[in-house]
Amino acid sequence: MRLKSVIFVLGKILFAVAIILLLPAVCALIYKESPLPFLAPAAISLVLGFLLTLNPKKEDRSLFAKDGFICVGFAWILVSLIGAVPFMFEPLGASFIDAFFESVSGFTTTGSSIFSDVESLPKSILFWRSLSQWVGGMGVLVFLLALMPKSDNKQSRYMHLMRAEVPGPSVDKIVPKLADTARVMYAMYIALTLAEIIVLLFGEMNLFEAINHSLATASTGGFGVKNDSLASYSAYSQYVVTIFMLIFGTNFNIFYLILLGQFVKAFKNEELRTYLCILAVATTLIGANIFLNLYSENPLEYSFRHALFQVASIITTSGFSSIDFNVWPSLSHVLLVLLMFSGACAGSTSGGIKISRIMLLTKNGKREIKYISQPKAVISVKLNGKTVDNDIIRGATSFIIMYGTLFVISAILMTAIDGIDPITGFTSVATSINNVGPGLGDAGPAENFGFYSVWSKLILCFNMLAGRLELFPILILLSPTAYKKHA
Amino acid sequence: MRLKSVIFVLGKILFAVAIILLLPAVCALIYKESPLPFLAPAAISLVLGFLLTLNPKKEDRSLFAKDGFICVGFAWILVSLIGAVPFMFEPLGASFIDAFFESVSGFTTTGSSIFSDVESLPKSILFWRSLSQWVGGMGVLVFLLALMPKSDNKQSRYMHLMRAEVPGPSVDKIVPKLADTARVMYAMYIALTLAEIIVLLFGEMNLFEAINHSLATASTGGFGVKNDSLASYSAYSQYVVTIFMLIFGTNFNIFYLILLGQFVKAFKNEELRTYLCILAVATTLIGANIFLNLYSENPLEYSFRHALFQVASIITTSGFSSIDFNVWPSLSHVLLVLLMFSGACAGSTSGGIKISRIMLLTKNGKREIKYISQPKAVISVKLNGKTVDNDIIRGATSFIIMYGTLFVISAILMTAIDGIDPITGFTSVATSINNVGPGLGDAGPAENFGFYSVWSKLILCFNMLAGRLELFPILILLSPTAYKKHA
Repeated sequence: MRLKSVIFVLGKILFAVAIILLLPAVCALIYKESPLPFLAPAAISLVLGFLLTLNPKKEDRSLFAKDGFICVGFAWILVSLIGAVPFMFEPLGASFIDAFFESVSGFTTTGSSIFSDVESLPKSILFWRSLSQWVGGMGVLVFLLALMPKSDNKQSRYMHLMRAEVPGPSVDKIVPKLADTARVMYAMYIALTLAEIIVLLFGEMNLFEAINHSLATASTGGFGVKNDSLASYSAYSQYVVTIFMLIFGTNFNIFYLILLGQFVKAFKNEELRTYLCILAVATTLIGANIFLNLYSENPLEYSFRHALFQVASIITTSGFSSIDFNVWPSLSHVLLVLLMFSGACAGSTSGGIKISRIMLLTKNGKREIKYISQPKAVISVKLNGKTVDNDIIRGATSFIIMYGTLFVISAILMTAIDGIDPITGFTSVATSINNVGPGLGDAGPAENFGFYSVWSKLILCFNMLAGRLELFPILILLSPTAYKKHA
Repeated sequence: MRLKSVIFVLGKILFAVAIILLLPAVCALIYKESPLPFLAPAAISLVLGFLLTLNPKKEDRSLFAKDGFICVGFAWILVSLIGAVPFMFEPLGASFIDAFFESVSGFTTTGSSIFSDVESLPKSILFWRSLSQWVGGMGVLVFLLALMPKSDNKQSRYMHLMRAEVPGPSVDKIVPKLADTARVMYAMYIALTLAEIIVLLFGEMNLFEAINHSLATASTGGFGVKNDSLASYSAYSQYVVTIFMLIFGTNFNIFYLILLGQFVKAFKNEELRTYLCILAVATTLIGANIFLNLYSENPLEYSFRHALFQVASIITTSGFSSIDFNVWPSLSHVLLVLLMFSGACAGSTSGGIKISRIMLLTKNGKREIKYISQPKAVISVKLNGKTVDNDIIRGATSFIIMYGTLFVISAILMTAIDGIDPITGFTSVATSINNVGPGLGDAGPAENFGFYSVWSKLILCFNMLAGRLELFPILILLSPTAYKKHA
C-alpha cells in the first residue's frame, strides 16, 4: 500500500464531506432546528482533512490498482463514521452502533432504518438521510473526481478509484477524460433528480417531500419521510416514483447515448432489453399472484400498480414500499427475494449482482456445456456483439461465489447470534448485501432493524458496505497483503 | 452423438439391471412373497438389452467425451424407469410418477420416499429399495466396467463413462487399468458393506435389518425399514451407522492408500482433514445448540449422539434420522442445510457439492483478491501440494453457479406450483439436488414426499438425477448439440 497517497486521498474526501454536511445545516436553519449536529462533524472533517493533506510531495500521489481499492474501502468507512455523528446528537441521541448503522444504510443506499417513528425525526435529519443516499448513490470518490480541476493531467491514475466504486463488471469511460466522465455522470444525475422533483410537485407532495423522495429515488436508496414509506401517497406519486426508480436502475451510458441521439445503439443494449423483460415478467407474475390471492375485490389497476411498484423498488434495490408486501403469498416473496439479488443494470445506482453479470454467467454456463463436446475448442462469450475478455468472466464467476458465500455465512451468524427465524435472518442479510432496505418477516417493510443485537448490526453494516462496493474494496481491508508496503 | 455406441452401452446396462433384479426376486421367494414385480421388469430388460446389443461391428463402439455424458444421462433415466416397475405392482400399486420418484430417489441415493408407512411394505420391496441405493451409490456404469473382461484392451475409451458417473471435480485412476480401478473400488465397497453388516449384527438388528441398513449406509442413501428411520434403534446401532456413514463419505482412494500401507500419504490428504474439521465444528455447534435449548434434561451423551448422527447423516447426504430434527432450533437447521450442500469427499458415494470443490473455490477466491494487487501475475491454486489445472477451477466455478441456479429455479417453481411455504419448498429441492433425503417443514424427517403434485415430483426427480450425476450428463440431454451426429 502507498500509505501517503491513500492518506492524501482520504484527506481530500474529508473536505468534500465537510462541504456536503453544510447542506443539512442550512436545512436546519430554515426549519429553525439546531445546525450543531451537522456543523460539529463538518468541523472535525475540515481539521482532519487539513492534517491528512499537509504532507505530500507531488510524486507521492501515485495510486496503483490495489491502492485504489484500499482507498475506496477506507473512504467509505470513514465517511460512514462521520455521517453517523448527526444521529448521536440530541434529540435523537442514538447509540454509536445505531447511528453508524443508519449512516452506512444511507451512504450504501440500502435504506434500512433503526428508527421506528421516522415522522418524529427533525426535518434536517430526514434531509441528511436522503442526502447521504444521494451522495452514496453515484459515489463519494466519483464526486471528488467530478470536482477535480480540468488542469490536472494525471487524472488517469484515479481510474482505479472509479473502477472500485462504480458498480458492474467493467467500467467504460463515457468520454476520454476521466474527470469529464465523472462530471458528465454527475450532471445527468443532477438533471434527472431535478426532473423528478418537478414532476412530483405536480402531485400532492410539498417541496420538502419531493426533494427527499427524489434524492432517495435517484440513489435507489429508499429512505422516506413517512412511517409507511410511500403507501399513503396518491397513485400519481407512486407511479412517478416507479418510473424514476426504473430510470435510475438503467446504465447511465444509455442516457448519454440518448443525449447524443444514438437511439438505436441505446435500445440495442442487451442488458437494457433483459432488464425490461425481467420487469415485465416479474410484474405480471406478482400482479397475478396478489390479484388472485388477496386483492381480487379491488380494481385490476390496484394489483398492477403495487406489483409494478414493488418489482421496480426491489430490482433497482430502492426499497420503497407502496404496501406491506410481508402479507403477500409465497410466490411473490420468492420472486422479490430473487429480484433483490439480480439488481438492475451495471453502471446505474442500483445494488445487487447486476443483470449484465448474471447474463455473463448464463452465457458462460452455456459455453461450459459446449466444452463437453469440444474440450479443446476456443469458444468466446459475447455481450452486445463484443467478445468478453476471459478475465472479466473469471472475475464475474469469482465475484458471484464470494458474494454467495458472504451472504450465507452472514445469515448463519445472524440467525445464530440473535436466535431469529431463518426467513427474517436470511432476508435481512439479503436486503443488506443487495442494498435494498426492507426484508421479510420481522424485517419486513412495516418493521425496522432496531431490534437486532450490536453484533448483528455490525454484520449487516459489513454486508451493506461489501455489497455497495462489490466486495473487493472491503474484503481487501481484511487481507494482510493490503498492508504490505509497495506490494 | 455416436448413436450406435450409445445404444450398445445402454443394451449392456439393461443386462446388468436384469441380473440385479434377480436378487430381490430371490428375497421375495425367501419371504414367500410374489417374485413377479421383479421378474417382469427383469424379463423386459433382458429382451430390450438383447435387441439393443444386436447390431454393431466392433469399430462402432468408440465413445468420445460427449457420448460418455449422454450415455450416463440416458442410462440413469432408463434404469430408474425399469426400477420403478416393482412399485407399480400390487399390493403397492403406486402411480407411475410415484413409482418413478421412489426409483429415482433410490438409485440417486437420495432416500426421500412417497410411502407414508414403510413398515407395511413387503420385505422384497424394502430390499429392492436398499439394493437400488447400493447399486446407484458406486454407479451403474462403474458396475458394468467392473464386470468387463480383463482381455478387453480398449478399456480406456470407457474412461469418459467413469468420469461422468463418479462424483468430484476430477477422477483419478487408482490403478493403471480402468476396469481394474472399477474392480478395486467395487471390492472395497463390498468389503466395507459386509463389515457393517457384521458389526450391526452384534447389536439388536436381525440379518434383514442389518443388510438393508448396510446397503443404504454404504451408498449414503438412507432408505430405512422403519417409519422413524433409526430413531427406535439402540445407541450402539446408531453409533455404528454413524461411523460407517462417515467412512462411506471418505474418498475411496484414501482406503486404497491405507490398504497399500501408505498411512502418512492418506492422512495428509487436505480434503480428508477439512472433512474431519467440518465434522468436529458442526457437531460441537449443533450439539451445544440442542443441549442448551432442548435436551438439557438428558445426559450430555444424548445431545452429542444425535448431533453427531445428524451431522454425519447430512454431510454424507445419507439422510437417516435418529430423531425428528424438524423441532431443533434455527441455528441447527441452518447448519444442517449448509452441510447438505457441502456434501462429503469427492470419490465417495456422498452427494452435494463435495468438500474438495468448495476448497478449490475458496482458494480461487483468495487468488482473486491477490489478483487485485498483481493483475498480471500468474498465481497457481494448489491442492494436496499439487498445482490444480485452471480448466478444473473453471469447471468447478461454472459447476457451482449452475448448481445454485438449478436449485433456485426449481425451488421457485415448486413453491409456485404447490403454493407451499418457502422453507418446505427450498429444503425439498436442497435435499433432492444434494441426494440427502429429508428436508425441513412439511418435508421433514417424520414426513414423506407423497403430498407433492406430479409437476413438483418431476422437478424433484430432475434435481435428484442432476445432483447425483453432477449436472452435465443430465443438462446435456436438454441441449440440442447432444443430438448432432458425430459432433
